[in-house]
Amino acid sequence: MGNKLIVATRNPDKLIELRRILEAGRVPVDVGDLSEFPDLPEIAETGLTFTENALIKARAVAAFTGLPAVADDSGLCADALNGMPGVLSARWSGRHGDDGANLQLVLGQLADVPVEHRGAQFACAAALVLPSGAEHVTEGLLGGTLTTAPRGTNGFGYDPIFVPEGAQLTTAEMSPADKDKISHRGRAFRALAPIIAALLGS
Amino acid sequence: MGNKLIVATRNPDKLIELRRILEAGRVPVDVGDLSEFPDLPEIAETGLTFTENALIKARAVAAFTGLPAVADDSGLCADALNGMPGVLSARWSGRHGDDGANLQLVLGQLADVPVEHRGAQFACAAALVLPSGAEHVTEGLLGGTLTTAPRGTNGFGYDPIFVPEGAQLTTAEMSPADKDKISHRGRAFRALAPIIAALLGS
Repeated sequence: MGNKLIVATRNPDKLIELRRILEAGRVPVDVGDLSEFPDLPEIAETGLTFTENALIKARAVAAFTGLPAVADDSGLCADALNGMPGVLSARWSGRHGDDGANLQLVLGQLADVPVEHRGAQFACAAALVLPSGAEHVTEGLLGGTLTTAPRGTNGFGYDPIFVPEGAQLTTAEMSPADKDKISHRGRAFRALAPIIAALLGS
Repeated sequence: MGNKLIVATRNPDKLIELRRILEAGRVPVDVGDLSEFPDLPEIAETGLTFTENALIKARAVAAFTGLPAVADDSGLCADALNGMPGVLSARWSGRHGDDGANLQLVLGQLADVPVEHRGAQFACAAALVLPSGAEHVTEGLLGGTLTTAPRGTNGFGYDPIFVPEGAQLTTAEMSPADKDKISHRGRAFRALAPIIAALLGS
């Protein structure tokens, strides 16, 4: 171990998932989180893309802490909603972080949408920002279909209504390890892991 | 007068507006509405575009009544929502026809979106279908910007949060006549009026 890397999220579910993915990838750094920095100001996610928002968060945390930071921005892109909720996934119902209200709203909006038009993608941008100003972004996608009712209690966000291509279970019915193997977030952070190791490995 | 034309909408606000536009255009037909056909089955608006939905409604009414029918499908297309609510405008909150809930949801989704990204369009497709099977569709657009709070009590739908390009007032603050002159629905039906006159004028 040696260098420290801060995971820039205040979402407890996402923090668990990112720690799990980074640990499975044996990234040779100490992983810290924002609980160590209670005075960090609120970060406005005003980007129009996942990449912009991931960079906004990682830059703000690297600047505030003086430490390397990784951030994720991710969401659900529904075909029948022209790729939305997209960057508004966490606040789709108008209330930030209300997973139940957000997914029920998507189900309501798609109530009359037949299965052949219920395609969707989970998308994730993973950003690494160093205090030196160096920046790296990787992306991960997972294609699938939206259900008509929630199923499963694992995961978070839209997991209970998303069935990956080739699967029968929603990502909320899968084990965390099975989900991470295919998930947008797993793919993005596994692509970022060798960059983290090269830049921060002691 | 002579031939009869049925306006295929169950939305009372839209019916008033369409009658007003058709009458201002001096379309030489008797204008009837769905109140004369209480047994008409519910029409599922399953199209992916305004044009598809306008045709679905006009075809269903022409087939059921044996009379020429016009229908409108229209909605708000917000830049920051990738053109949504679009064809889901009337059911954006998950409840069909709840104008207040729909516009409050758009305001909530755009709460962090700055004015330079609050561009939007009102779009309308106007369809004429004759019992013979002849079909004509016209379109109308109105560009503008979304406010951060509702203003005005005229109109319906998203009128209270939409300021047309070059205007200061929302379309809900304008007089009906002023709104019709520039509105997406006014433009689409004025484009359809000469076709109605040519096909149905006695």
